[in-house]
Amino acid sequence: MRFDVTILGSSSATPIFNRYPSAQLLNINERYFLIDCGEGTQLQLLRNGIKAQRIEHIFISHLHGDHYLGLVGLLSSMHLNGRKKPLFIYAPAELKEILEVQFKYSQTDIRYPIEYYFTNSEVPEKIFENQDVVVETIILEHRIPCTGFKFTQKKRLRKLLKEKVEALDLPLPAIHLLKRGMDFTDMDGKVYRSEDFTTDPDEPRAYAYCSDTICNWKYLDSIQGVDTLYHESTFMHDMIERAQETFHTTALQAAEIAVKANAKQLLLGHFSARYRELEPLLLEAQTVFPNSKLAIEGTVFQL
Amino acid sequence: MRFDVTILGSSSATPIFNRYPSAQLLNINERYFLIDCGEGTQLQLLRNGIKAQRIEHIFISHLHGDHYLGLVGLLSSMHLNGRKKPLFIYAPAELKEILEVQFKYSQTDIRYPIEYYFTNSEVPEKIFENQDVVVETIILEHRIPCTGFKFTQKKRLRKLLKEKVEALDLPLPAIHLLKRGMDFTDMDGKVYRSEDFTTDPDEPRAYAYCSDTICNWKYLDSIQGVDTLYHESTFMHDMIERAQETFHTTALQAAEIAVKANAKQLLLGHFSARYRELEPLLLEAQTVFPNSKLAIEGTVFQL
Repeated sequence: MRFDVTILGSSSATPIFNRYPSAQLLNINERYFLIDCGEGTQLQLLRNGIKAQRIEHIFISHLHGDHYLGLVGLLSSMHLNGRKKPLFIYAPAELKEILEVQFKYSQTDIRYPIEYYFTNSEVPEKIFENQDVVVETIILEHRIPCTGFKFTQKKRLRKLLKEKVEALDLPLPAIHLLKRGMDFTDMDGKVYRSEDFTTDPDEPRAYAYCSDTICNWKYLDSIQGVDTLYHESTFMHDMIERAQETFHTTALQAAEIAVKANAKQLLLGHFSARYRELEPLLLEAQTVFPNSKLAIEGTVFQL
Repeated sequence: MRFDVTILGSSSATPIFNRYPSAQLLNINERYFLIDCGEGTQLQLLRNGIKAQRIEHIFISHLHGDHYLGLVGLLSSMHLNGRKKPLFIYAPAELKEILEVQFKYSQTDIRYPIEYYFTNSEVPEKIFENQDVVVETIILEHRIPCTGFKFTQKKRLRKLLKEKVEALDLPLPAIHLLKRGMDFTDMDGKVYRSEDFTTDPDEPRAYAYCSDTICNWKYLDSIQGVDTLYHESTFMHDMIERAQETFHTTALQAAEIAVKANAKQLLLGHFSARYRELEPLLLEAQTVFPNSKLAIEGTVFQL
């Protein structure tokens, strides 16, 4: 099952050096989830060959412009390109007002349904679930209400040993039993043991998106044990005071959180305009958490 | 005196093929005027080496997203980069509400003064004047209220023949007289004739920006005699019905308007996403108005 993320933007508030503001496209079993939607996201989707119309769910962490300003353009283009299927937006309640005032004055009557789920910035919640994944909020601490998002795969069915099964002529319900780890007994009393016809499923994996936030331990429970952690690292650690004043995190702190959360992989992003070169931020994080990576535009990470 | 325009965006509503939505930077005697501000304008300014902080005046034609969605990002970046000097915005009144609701929810307290002048979409008006230029609105006809903008240089002073003047020791007021075409008589009764020490000034030039609009002759008076006409040409003429339905113009019509307005140069822009190649639009316009040009990203036109 596909479970990967394409980075569309790695910049913090003032985009520079060809870096774009925050946006990521998650592909979960060929369904598209967009996390944050900074200015230029629709252009970044085009550049990365990603069909915007395939996006079903959009998650907005908070209402600083670098995390949502691309939304009106994206929604308008979906409309102009004939979208009919619904779009689900998970965001602070005020986003609806921001979008609607703009649609009102542009006299844009969006032809597809937009369904909102308003996030709560005080208590973590489950906000979405389908057959593949559960999405929960992470309560971050920024200058304005802000939530991260955790995507946890559901436990998969056991994998069928196709050659073995195809040699027989089992009815479909029998196959469903075997995939669920249960044995099947046929009319003649013959027992087909699940373990003979299946192998263990892949372990469910989890991805946490944490941006923007001051470094604290309050959200550690929410991200404990995730396989991949995306964490903002706006500054290097020599700027720790500035990071705290502005409710941001340093690369070193992001790495410390990855260690404490027992993550397997750390993606760094949301880089300040003061850094033309990003290698120093990466090296700083790697001193503490070796499997750190730069989440820069166009890179795709297996989660 | 500099009088040129840098094209930052040439796309209509749905940006594609690396084309950006509408935005143009006018340099008038080293002062910066931005016309429209589609999504990604701040990134386009960076790419073209234009310092955003030098922009003093922003003109927004209408409230379709492809003409203003880059504004919140641009204004926020100006703020984050420490701007103190005022910014003047000329736009439909509703833009203020759109901006303010976003600044409210992002808790952004813009530190520099923003002064609004609300455009009237019914009657052409003079909306700005300084020592170099007068700006007037052009009443366009689009799906929502929309004005174009005409920038007319003021008549310049006569040009001083520096070598001739420097050989003498004339007082400053005498030089001011000569530049204004008046003769100067010194204490000894000696007459210095303006025509001996100056040459004719450059003719004042005018630039008209017309986007978005259906083709009609109502605004012809407003643009009569401009040197350079930027006119939207969203479609080719075989799409004339679609152009009329959507209140847009074809390349052929734009050229006809340029002829009727006695313009010297026509810039075509606001191209539909249906055209990957733009050469056919150019050729169509040139059949009627030979000095037509494609106003594509990064090009600079002397006005």
